[in-house]
Amino acid sequence: MSDPVAIGIDIGGTKLVAATVAADGRVLDRQRRETPAHDSALLLDTLRTSIRQLSGDRTDLPVGIGIAGLVSPDGVIRYGPNIGVRDVAIAEELGEVTSGPVAVVNDASAATLGEQRAGAARGHRDVVMFTLGTGVGGGVVVDGKLLLGAHGFATEIGHVIVEEGGRRCPCGNRGCIEAYASGSSIGRIAAERLVASDGDSPLRVIEAPTGRDVSQAALGGDALAVQVLVEAGTWLGVAAASLVNLLDPEVVLLGGGAALATSRWIVPAASEALEARMIGREWRTPPPIELAALGDDAGMVGAAQLAADRAGEVTGPSSLA
Amino acid sequence: MSDPVAIGIDIGGTKLVAATVAADGRVLDRQRRETPAHDSALLLDTLRTSIRQLSGDRTDLPVGIGIAGLVSPDGVIRYGPNIGVRDVAIAEELGEVTSGPVAVVNDASAATLGEQRAGAARGHRDVVMFTLGTGVGGGVVVDGKLLLGAHGFATEIGHVIVEEGGRRCPCGNRGCIEAYASGSSIGRIAAERLVASDGDSPLRVIEAPTGRDVSQAALGGDALAVQVLVEAGTWLGVAAASLVNLLDPEVVLLGGGAALATSRWIVPAASEALEARMIGREWRTPPPIELAALGDDAGMVGAAQLAADRAGEVTGPSSLA
Repeated sequence: MSDPVAIGIDIGGTKLVAATVAADGRVLDRQRRETPAHDSALLLDTLRTSIRQLSGDRTDLPVGIGIAGLVSPDGVIRYGPNIGVRDVAIAEELGEVTSGPVAVVNDASAATLGEQRAGAARGHRDVVMFTLGTGVGGGVVVDGKLLLGAHGFATEIGHVIVEEGGRRCPCGNRGCIEAYASGSSIGRIAAERLVASDGDSPLRVIEAPTGRDVSQAALGGDALAVQVLVEAGTWLGVAAASLVNLLDPEVVLLGGGAALATSRWIVPAASEALEARMIGREWRTPPPIELAALGDDAGMVGAAQLAADRAGEVTGPSSLA
Repeated sequence: MSDPVAIGIDIGGTKLVAATVAADGRVLDRQRRETPAHDSALLLDTLRTSIRQLSGDRTDLPVGIGIAGLVSPDGVIRYGPNIGVRDVAIAEELGEVTSGPVAVVNDASAATLGEQRAGAARGHRDVVMFTLGTGVGGGVVVDGKLLLGAHGFATEIGHVIVEEGGRRCPCGNRGCIEAYASGSSIGRIAAERLVASDGDSPLRVIEAPTGRDVSQAALGGDALAVQVLVEAGTWLGVAAASLVNLLDPEVVLLGGGAALATSRWIVPAASEALEARMIGREWRTPPPIELAALGDDAGMVGAAQLAADRAGEVTGPSSLA
C-alpha cells in the first residue's frame, strides 16, 4: 500500500468527504460526514477531528481543502453561501492539527486540479473544466498550476457572459453562462417552453421541473427535454469558445453529476458550437470536450495535490508535479 | 548608462522597431525601419542586420521578438496576415546572430508584459490588457508570467464573445468583442447610425468613416460619435467583466492608439459596465481600468523582458522578474 502524501477534504453544501491521498492521486483511507452548515465553530471542530483520525501518527501531513465559495489566497473562506459561512480563517484555525501546510481553495478549482493530476486530463498542462450542478462552476489549470487570480477569486466560470442583456442569472447580472446551462436554469427554461407550447411532455405534471427532471425526461425520449439540453450544450460551447480563444487549453472537461447524466446531448452540441467559433478553426482542431473521470473524489484528490505541491515548494520538488 | 540585458524587436504591419533594453525596462539604443512585408527572407535579413548592429561586441544578448500574428511556443510564426508571413521559424533562423535565447511572441502579449514590468501595471502580478487598434488584441499576465496557452495561441482577447449571434466579426464568427470595439467596428457602427438617423454630423461627408474619424468627430463635440464611443466602452466593460470573473486581475489596461484618443469616453463607460457585472460586486471593488503607459515601446520592451526571463531560466533568476 502507498504512503499518503496529503489529506484532501471536500466541503460541499450537504456532505463533507475527506481522505488520505497517495502521490499518484489514489484515495487511501476515506471518510464521509454531513457538512455542519451555518456553524463555523462546529465546521472547524469536524475538520480537526477528521484530520486527526486520518493522520494517525503523522502530524505533519499537508492538508488541502476544497470548499464551495470564494477563498482568499491566505486560506480564508470569504463567502460560502451554500455552507453558510463567511470570513472563516480555515488555514490558520487548522494549524493546530498539522505542522504541514494547509491549502484552501474553491471546490471546483480543487476538482479541476484533481482531474488534471489523476483524472480525465492527466498528462495535460493546460486544462479548462466546467462543473455543472445547481449552478455552473469550474476551474483552470495553466501550465500545470491552478489559476487562482490576484485575490483567489479567479475562475468564476459560471459568470462568463455569453449574451449581454440575456437571461437573468442568480448573481443578479444577465447573460452569464450559468443562466443557460446550470441545472436550475435548464429546469426553468424547460418550464418556459412548456408554457409556450402545447405538445405532450412528462414534464407537464411537474410544477417546477429541475435539471434532473429534464434529464430524466430526455432519457425517456421527451423531445422538448432533449431540445432544452441540446441548447444548453450549445451555450456551453459558446462559453468554451471564449475560454479557448483566451486560454488555449489542451482539453475542456465537463464535470458534475448534471454533465454525466446529460452528456449524450450536451457534449456533441457543445463541441459543435466550439468548433464553429474558435479562432483559427480553418487550420487547427479545437481541444476535445470530455467528461471528467473522478466523480465526487475529484475535489478531495485535487485539494490533496495542491497541499502536497505547497509542501514541495518549501522542501523541494513534489513527486506529484 | 545601464547595460543592456536584451534586445527587443516589435514587428508591426508597417514598421519594425528594435532596441537594446536595460534591466529596469528602459530603452537604450533604438532603431526604426519599415517592415519588409510578404517577403520572409528579407524580413529575416532585416532582423539579422538589426540584431548585429544593436549587439555591438555582445554576441550573447537574448533577443525577444513581438510580432502581429499567431506564434507557436518554439518560436515559429504560424500565421501573420498583416505582415504576410506564414510558418517562418524565426527563433531558429536567428540562432546564427546570437548565442542567447530568442523568444518570439504575439505583439499584444509582448506589450502586456512590457506594461507589467515597466509601464502602467508595474508592481502588479496579474494583469489583463486590451489593445485597441484596427482590431482588438490583448494579453494576460498571470502571477508575473505571460499567459501563452498550450500551443502559444492564448489571449485572442478580441474573440471573446460578448453577444452570441451578435455583430459579424472579421474572423467570421458573430458577437466577438472585436466586432464592437475595434477601430474598424467603431467606424462601421457610426456609418450605420448615420443611415438610421438624420441628425447633423461632420461624419456625413465621409464615405466610410474609420475609428479615427469617429474619435475626431467626438473631440469636436459630435453627439453621434460620442454615443458610438460610449457604447464601444460599455461593450469593452462587458468583455472585461468576463475576463475579471475568470482571471481576477489587479488591473485592466487599455492600450493602442485608439484607446488613448478615445479614453475620456471609453474608460468611464467600460468601468461602469464592469462594475455592474463583476461577481462579488456587492462586497469588493473591481480592478481599475487604466491606460497603458509605454505607447509604441511596450511590445519592444516586453519582448526584451521575455527573452531576458528565458536567459534567466537557464542561468539563474533574472534581475527583471
